[in-house]
Amino acid sequence: MNTFGRALRITTFGESHGPGIGVVLDGLPSGVSISVEAIQAELDRRRPGTSPYTSPRREADRVEVLSGLYTGRTTGAPLALWIANTDARPADYAKLAQLYRPSHADFTYTLKYGHTDPQGGGRSSARETAARVAAGAVAQQFLQQAIPDLQILAWSCAIGPFTTAYRPTDRTEIERSPVRCPDPIVSAEMERYLAELQIAGDTTGGIIAVEARGVPPGLGEPIYDKLSARLAYAMLSINAARGFEIGEGFAAASTLGSVHNDPFHKDASGRIRPATNHAGGVLGGISTGEPLFFRVAFKPIATLRRPQHTVTRQGEEVIFSAEGRHDPCPVPRAVPIVEAMTALVLADFILLNRLYKH
Amino acid sequence: MNTFGRALRITTFGESHGPGIGVVLDGLPSGVSISVEAIQAELDRRRPGTSPYTSPRREADRVEVLSGLYTGRTTGAPLALWIANTDARPADYAKLAQLYRPSHADFTYTLKYGHTDPQGGGRSSARETAARVAAGAVAQQFLQQAIPDLQILAWSCAIGPFTTAYRPTDRTEIERSPVRCPDPIVSAEMERYLAELQIAGDTTGGIIAVEARGVPPGLGEPIYDKLSARLAYAMLSINAARGFEIGEGFAAASTLGSVHNDPFHKDASGRIRPATNHAGGVLGGISTGEPLFFRVAFKPIATLRRPQHTVTRQGEEVIFSAEGRHDPCPVPRAVPIVEAMTALVLADFILLNRLYKH
Amino acid sequence: MNTFGRALRITTFGESHGPGIGVVLDGLPSGVSISVEAIQAELDRRRPGTSPYTSPRREADRVEVLSGLYTGRTTGAPLALWIANTDARPADYAKLAQLYRPSHADFTYTLKYGHTDPQGGGRSSARETAARVAAGAVAQQFLQQAIPDLQILAWSCAIGPFTTAYRPTDRTEIERSPVRCPDPIVSAEMERYLAELQIAGDTTGGIIAVEARGVPPGLGEPIYDKLSARLAYAMLSINAARGFEIGEGFAAASTLGSVHNDPFHKDASGRIRPATNHAGGVLGGISTGEPLFFRVAFKPIATLRRPQHTVTRQGEEVIFSAEGRHDPCPVPRAVPIVEAMTALVLADFILLNRLYKH
Amino acid sequence: MNTFGRALRITTFGESHGPGIGVVLDGLPSGVSISVEAIQAELDRRRPGTSPYTSPRREADRVEVLSGLYTGRTTGAPLALWIANTDARPADYAKLAQLYRPSHADFTYTLKYGHTDPQGGGRSSARETAARVAAGAVAQQFLQQAIPDLQILAWSCAIGPFTTAYRPTDRTEIERSPVRCPDPIVSAEMERYLAELQIAGDTTGGIIAVEARGVPPGLGEPIYDKLSARLAYAMLSINAARGFEIGEGFAAASTLGSVHNDPFHKDASGRIRPATNHAGGVLGGISTGEPLFFRVAFKPIATLRRPQHTVTRQGEEVIFSAEGRHDPCPVPRAVPIVEAMTALVLADFILLNRLYKH
Repeated sequence: MNTFGRALRITTFGESHGPGIGVVLDGLPSGVSISVEAIQAELDRRRPGTSPYTSPRREADRVEVLSGLYTGRTTGAPLALWIANTDARPADYAKLAQLYRPSHADFTYTLKYGHTDPQGGGRSSARETAARVAAGAVAQQFLQQAIPDLQILAWSCAIGPFTTAYRPTDRTEIERSPVRCPDPIVSAEMERYLAELQIAGDTTGGIIAVEARGVPPGLGEPIYDKLSARLAYAMLSINAARGFEIGEGFAAASTLGSVHNDPFHKDASGRIRPATNHAGGVLGGISTGEPLFFRVAFKPIATLRRPQHTVTRQGEEVIFSAEGRHDPCPVPRAVPIVEAMTALVLADFILLNRLYKH
Repeated sequence: MNTFGRALRITTFGESHGPGIGVVLDGLPSGVSISVEAIQAELDRRRPGTSPYTSPRREADRVEVLSGLYTGRTTGAPLALWIANTDARPADYAKLAQLYRPSHADFTYTLKYGHTDPQGGGRSSARETAARVAAGAVAQQFLQQAIPDLQILAWSCAIGPFTTAYRPTDRTEIERSPVRCPDPIVSAEMERYLAELQIAGDTTGGIIAVEARGVPPGLGEPIYDKLSARLAYAMLSINAARGFEIGEGFAAASTLGSVHNDPFHKDASGRIRPATNHAGGVLGGISTGEPLFFRVAFKPIATLRRPQHTVTRQGEEVIFSAEGRHDPCPVPRAVPIVEAMTALVLADFILLNRLYKH
Repeated sequence: MNTFGRALRITTFGESHGPGIGVVLDGLPSGVSISVEAIQAELDRRRPGTSPYTSPRREADRVEVLSGLYTGRTTGAPLALWIANTDARPADYAKLAQLYRPSHADFTYTLKYGHTDPQGGGRSSARETAARVAAGAVAQQFLQQAIPDLQILAWSCAIGPFTTAYRPTDRTEIERSPVRCPDPIVSAEMERYLAELQIAGDTTGGIIAVEARGVPPGLGEPIYDKLSARLAYAMLSINAARGFEIGEGFAAASTLGSVHNDPFHKDASGRIRPATNHAGGVLGGISTGEPLFFRVAFKPIATLRRPQHTVTRQGEEVIFSAEGRHDPCPVPRAVPIVEAMTALVLADFILLNRLYKH
Repeated sequence: MNTFGRALRITTFGESHGPGIGVVLDGLPSGVSISVEAIQAELDRRRPGTSPYTSPRREADRVEVLSGLYTGRTTGAPLALWIANTDARPADYAKLAQLYRPSHADFTYTLKYGHTDPQGGGRSSARETAARVAAGAVAQQFLQQAIPDLQILAWSCAIGPFTTAYRPTDRTEIERSPVRCPDPIVSAEMERYLAELQIAGDTTGGIIAVEARGVPPGLGEPIYDKLSARLAYAMLSINAARGFEIGEGFAAASTLGSVHNDPFHKDASGRIRPATNHAGGVLGGISTGEPLFFRVAFKPIATLRRPQHTVTRQGEEVIFSAEGRHDPCPVPRAVPIVEAMTALVLADFILLNRLYKH
């Protein structure tokens, strides 16, 4: 169950404080050109320590290709990527291993597995997402070559109480903000808020919006594997994700059908298409060809410098304060993870779509 | 891709206007007592025509067991259920087949498959959910026998602008409301609103809340198959579902970590557990043993009596009004569907959990 | 685990003495023309009572389409087929249910499941293969439309001590023999032998050979899902199958490499291909484009009229003789089953092969 | 499709002449003690250069654990193993890349993928089997802890024309023979034969027999995933495997039912069981509790020093002789691979069997 995908499958492995993190991509067609630099560039976007609002763990996060490429192109064999851990300090975690950190997975892992790795969250650490980002960067390269018009953009649309409805036109608008919010005014508010939280030793949640343009129509399978259902699955599999909505999402619940429906018309080029896109690009679980739009909610990061009540594994009450500097909000660094999972879902569907017509 | 589940798998088949709808359940342990009457009772809850606020199609929806039972108990062989269509009127759909109904899947099915069945939405019809409900009723019976304390309750917590935070204690509170809202005052408002919409020929969306008590700790697999991720997947696979949130969900995005975190304590019985449940019963993708709580947003039903703009398959602009009476809101009838999918997800995880300890 | 296939999946259900036997095919592309008569014709080939050498159970074996077709063509929705049981006589089996029939699966089903259906072997009955034949007939029709040159022939190449190396050119040569052996002299010997066994109340095993011509090159996945491995899997899943060999098979074990190797050359049309085909059409798990050739060994049918020692479920020693007339050899009726499984495996790989090039 | 297994899954990656070979095991229960030395010992058994009858490539084949262990025990997280290539000489293969070696997979990989890695067979190299052996050694350790009585023995029962029906009592009898044949007289003949073939620059095939004692009853799933079918699948997935038979196998085809049937009796300890074991331990696809017995046929190794006809990729006829020393027979080194795949299949079924009773 460390595997995701059907036609294009990723299997990830590795712990936060072991030798490293890896991913095997299986099902990539042969002949796809893969730039290791482009994978590295995505990893660099996810890496901690790249802005004032991220924790300072300074992993080099250098990706290595273990298999599957020949002369820079895929061969049809599994592509394995490896990112060595260079900042693993198991000793730091000896103390943590004695207590259940509030809202951490230590508790549920222990309930489930009995024997687990307490170091840095082990497998539950956000470090696992480095493997997703690396795999997603490969999927992105496949997509660029298969569907050149496809563009996936993700950005911070809410951090704490600060929100924006602005939709960026390209990644530059997003990346110039240290919190990955393309609306400069809201970005400034978010930054101020995060700086305050860092001082207070507190954290906040946030929301990431995703728009994918140029998605071909016909992606998604009607019943259980709807495009919307697989996206929800992928997004809720990300650490700290707590909600998903597509198109109008929760707002659609209080909207009239006559307002929410997207009437069909013939556009200027003579193509039949919906005149509006309240559906967020998916109808009956299948892409319409209109931009895909969805949002993912994240809870605040559980690790706080502020003192919290908790208990040891033996049940003694203790006060716990996390040491060191931690991210005040998961959202800025989760942007490339959300993009990666989106790319993996779309690449999977694009491959599967080769099967459906006679 | 008409299959859902891993240890307990359902495969559904059938169209709205063909001979009927079926489901094969594979992976049920042998020796589970199955009451066909209990399956029928769930189907009756989903059936149209059972309240003033549902469409009048009067399907008998009688379930038949085609295989897998011997003397009323499962044998380990696949359990197949069949619900014959008795109200299928293919002729009614000849006219519809000529145009794209706004926000219906006719459009995307045609884009995807080329050759499709236009009758009554064919496979995309909500009729497919009868098979889910039947399968879910089987999963419920397995759960009752395996985990007697487990109780799954779903209810309408929002219809149009009317919402309630009330949590019912049992199903009676829900079922006495014709809109399945356990809060009597809000239920009355919702009923009035739906009656108005029926007169206006319009529709609305809504939100279903789910609470599952007695969920054993340790369900869920850490990375991609988190309990929360599989629930999101299952819920977004339901027709008209547009959003999913677990625990505090989207509200967590604007909450402080120090407020949202659930501190651990030792309860009165000496068991270590979270003192609050903002997590909605899932931490790191694994159940904590606290009540599971999540919500699912539905968009308004697309079929309206009010006239709408659309185009024929040839692109001519036409005005389209649906004839007959249709449900004004998907939510009341979706309650048993949401429960069914919840039961299927939980049964699947409960079986899988037998694999994880040595 | 009642599902087989990856891109084209079948899920079968039903017992020997319940209402009937069914199969759901999922993953068929839309737009494939399906003739129900052609499915029925294949079922008629498998049906008991069609030759002196088969048991006389006279099932009508009429196939019904429950879903997935519109105007005679597939829609992309699952195609479900149903074959009602008309000769089920549960009462006949009350006595059998008290003892373990030698070499029957009653014993192992009871060990595995505890609670099982003793009637006519329940799910372990050869009746389940009717569903495979129906599904295979659908796969055959897809193959005929996708790869018109592909031809699958299976025949009895050994029954008891009588064997032939003759390879038929078409199905007529096979079907004119009541034991499905295309070599008329050997067929006559086999017939005589089976008539003697019927008098003696004994049974025998046999071997089925398969040749598939026109198989496109490139089918099969290199490592675990080799074409040869998936064929072995499919064949050994048939009741009473005990061995599989491809190309020279077991004989290759005592052959020199210099003799067994197939040198490459340029054929008359200038195409590079192996000059011989000891490999049976598969190299490194992938089809070469040469005819696929493999053989499947079947053990004798376990049900004998001759008295045999066995024990009751309570362990009392008893003498057991099967009543009525039974097939003296599984092979003649297994020929269409072997063809069906071959068609399903090839259709699955042909669909999957759409995924492998960029 | 580089994944094998259902409850216990392996995913392998890596090429013969890349950085190394890896495997990810997913689905191992937590708390299994894993000895890296025991994995290494199995790899040493498969390693080339360990007897006069194996090729001299001197890979160190050191296994490294990349993830999944904590204090020597599994944690429920994926266990990843890595074996670095130390004897990769890509340059050696530049010449080979120009021609199609007879009976090698270069030809079919090129047909399938277009762009492939010609170095040392790339992914089709027998080197991939090192990953299987490592994974199998982990499965063996799980089995030893879960079912201490279970013992898997594999041996060479035929090499070229020399065959033995002798069944060894333990691994020592097998391992003292340089060709892994437990019958000392036949072993000596086989050794002489292989020495002659080495001089002649030729190769031969052979057969491996497997006996597994202490297999619990009830393993295997009735229809497609019969124990026999999954074993056939696993065995035919091994490079150069050409045939599989279980119990009496192909010989059963010419045996009378009255002779082949295994009558049930009560044994000395009062347990009901078959009095004979012609079935090889599997009835109706499910283990009986009697020893599992099956055989796997291998074709001769395709790489010969003797000159052979072939063509270049451009179709020019050439004479090709492999340089260096190569194994004269695949069987001695395939013994640990066959054992590994057996262990993986059994471990998978033993885990799945936890799901089948209520």
